[in-house]
Amino acid sequence: MGGAERKHVFNAGPGALPRAVLEEVQRDLVDWQGRGLSIMEMSHRSSTYEAIIAEARQTIADLYALPADWDVLFLQGGASLQFAMVPMNLGSGGAYLNTGTWSTNALAEARRVGAAVELWSSAERGFDRVPGPDEVPATPDDAPYLHYTSNNTIYGTQYHHVPQSRAPLVCDMSSDFLSRPVDVAPYQLIYAGAQKNAGPSGVTIVLGPKALLHAYTGAASVPVILRYATHAKKDSMYNTPNTFGIYVVGLVAKWVRDAGGLAAMAARNAAKAEALYGALDAHPLVRGHAEPASRSQMNVTFRLETEDQEAAFLRLATARGMMGLKGHRSVGGLRASIYNAVEPASVDALVALLADFKG
Amino acid sequence: MGGAERKHVFNAGPGALPRAVLEEVQRDLVDWQGRGLSIMEMSHRSSTYEAIIAEARQTIADLYALPADWDVLFLQGGASLQFAMVPMNLGSGGAYLNTGTWSTNALAEARRVGAAVELWSSAERGFDRVPGPDEVPATPDDAPYLHYTSNNTIYGTQYHHVPQSRAPLVCDMSSDFLSRPVDVAPYQLIYAGAQKNAGPSGVTIVLGPKALLHAYTGAASVPVILRYATHAKKDSMYNTPNTFGIYVVGLVAKWVRDAGGLAAMAARNAAKAEALYGALDAHPLVRGHAEPASRSQMNVTFRLETEDQEAAFLRLATARGMMGLKGHRSVGGLRASIYNAVEPASVDALVALLADFKG
Repeated sequence: MGGAERKHVFNAGPGALPRAVLEEVQRDLVDWQGRGLSIMEMSHRSSTYEAIIAEARQTIADLYALPADWDVLFLQGGASLQFAMVPMNLGSGGAYLNTGTWSTNALAEARRVGAAVELWSSAERGFDRVPGPDEVPATPDDAPYLHYTSNNTIYGTQYHHVPQSRAPLVCDMSSDFLSRPVDVAPYQLIYAGAQKNAGPSGVTIVLGPKALLHAYTGAASVPVILRYATHAKKDSMYNTPNTFGIYVVGLVAKWVRDAGGLAAMAARNAAKAEALYGALDAHPLVRGHAEPASRSQMNVTFRLETEDQEAAFLRLATARGMMGLKGHRSVGGLRASIYNAVEPASVDALVALLADFKG
Repeated sequence: MGGAERKHVFNAGPGALPRAVLEEVQRDLVDWQGRGLSIMEMSHRSSTYEAIIAEARQTIADLYALPADWDVLFLQGGASLQFAMVPMNLGSGGAYLNTGTWSTNALAEARRVGAAVELWSSAERGFDRVPGPDEVPATPDDAPYLHYTSNNTIYGTQYHHVPQSRAPLVCDMSSDFLSRPVDVAPYQLIYAGAQKNAGPSGVTIVLGPKALLHAYTGAASVPVILRYATHAKKDSMYNTPNTFGIYVVGLVAKWVRDAGGLAAMAARNAAKAEALYGALDAHPLVRGHAEPASRSQMNVTFRLETEDQEAAFLRLATARGMMGLKGHRSVGGLRASIYNAVEPASVDALVALLADFKG
């Protein structure tokens, strides 16, 4: 394993994974649980693998306390493929809240598939906030869903309430999935790329009621591979899934469960965020990107007074074993992604760095 | 790692991986090359990961001696998503050679997207053969491509020649990719799910001329995520790719290169297949599924005289540490998948089992 210190990983995604999960994956990599082959060599149709994917599915269902009539799918293609699959499966005319790059892309993709409505946007403000509880206009009567992005990785904003809507909600939870409890009642679809809080990249998790996931009602011209029902009816094994990725997602979900579940994760994440935002607010050179009420507990975006200061800060961070603190190229500045698996000690190290940094 | 013997893995896919690759992945799993983080935690935008994906791309290009104007993409969704992307990107009216489940599915998906022609089929013969060099009817003048499946995993058949066509070829090489040299001149697109010879499941490799991959000419209604140009212009990082899977594909490609390249793989695979088919032909109880001229060097399908014999054979195989020999549920009987990474010693063990098996 080499003697190097483990880095403080603040990457925005793929992001940090729990050390215990990585060590279990490593231990079993060549010879899974003494079965004489790697998890990557197992047939997805074998009873051994079927138990692995079933346990991953059940653990996620348990964490969210999903109703019995909900299902969990493991797909490929990331949230970006969901941007297309959502209107293909749920119908055109969806309403979108635009709070950043990913919701912009989701809306654009929906408009290629059919009609779609931008109901609210913070584009003109540099996406520095999400709409407040009373700011979302009424969803049009004929909209089959209201789509929003619960956490905006690039801009560092997050909803701390559930948008009101007469249509059921569809939510891209890619960057705060498994980070806090969610009452799924107002939703008809929740999807998330795994590579922030839930596992490695290459797995997309989709939650929804079976009535919706198992019954395709869209156009005949939509390829079967892009219909939820195709995957739902085959327990996510219509074609070969990302077997290794799903295995790791299952281990991460069990790690969350064993750490106390989503409420415990939310408390841990809130404490980390409070410590970091507190240090940022106290620092004379720091300016946050997000409006305080919209601040993300996952991605903390901030700037220093000059780009030279930011470069100096990044050099000091690197020297102290921290990585991934450069802001997204579309925003600039600095960003600390403090997902589930980022240890409080890593946030403490960043807070100490801020205290020491004088420009 | 446990003390269990390593199994003889004859799984049809996900299939056997080279032991040396698995050991390297294991060694670096928690702390990649002493960098202080796992490959799964790395940003796909980091210079470290960009070098990893670039090397995987270049190694595959070198193995196939791709012309400089060809490109290599790493996508998600398996060959099944390519069944839809091919007609979406290359246009409707494609001609299909139907030699099994996968080409049947490819044709059906193309017919959802637009028109498509079944030019030849062995469905009525239980898909026991592929067309001979002189059997393929002329490709229609307006067909933008001729699509075929070079190896049929389920039925155990394989082309040992390149179909003649006035239209450029599109080939699903999922189950013989990296197993033998291919002159890419007559092709405009080659695609393969990685999980047979090239790596774990969850990565799809696409090869084609840049002129085709980088210029989208299809309908405006096709989602951008389903256009090759979207991925080609961003070096397969339009959205987060399966970073771990591509890393393993790169290691497997280097293993093939270091073992002598595709010609050496072809010789090794031919020797394994010759030994196994020889033992099967000599056995009084065995009946092969594929016509001899169409026999696959990747998936060897056969039956015994009764299902009781087949069950007894599988029990004996299990006792001797062999797995994955049960035939696909749609064909029944027995199947040995002897991909690149299946060692000659594993084939020898199976040959010895056949010699000992008296029914």
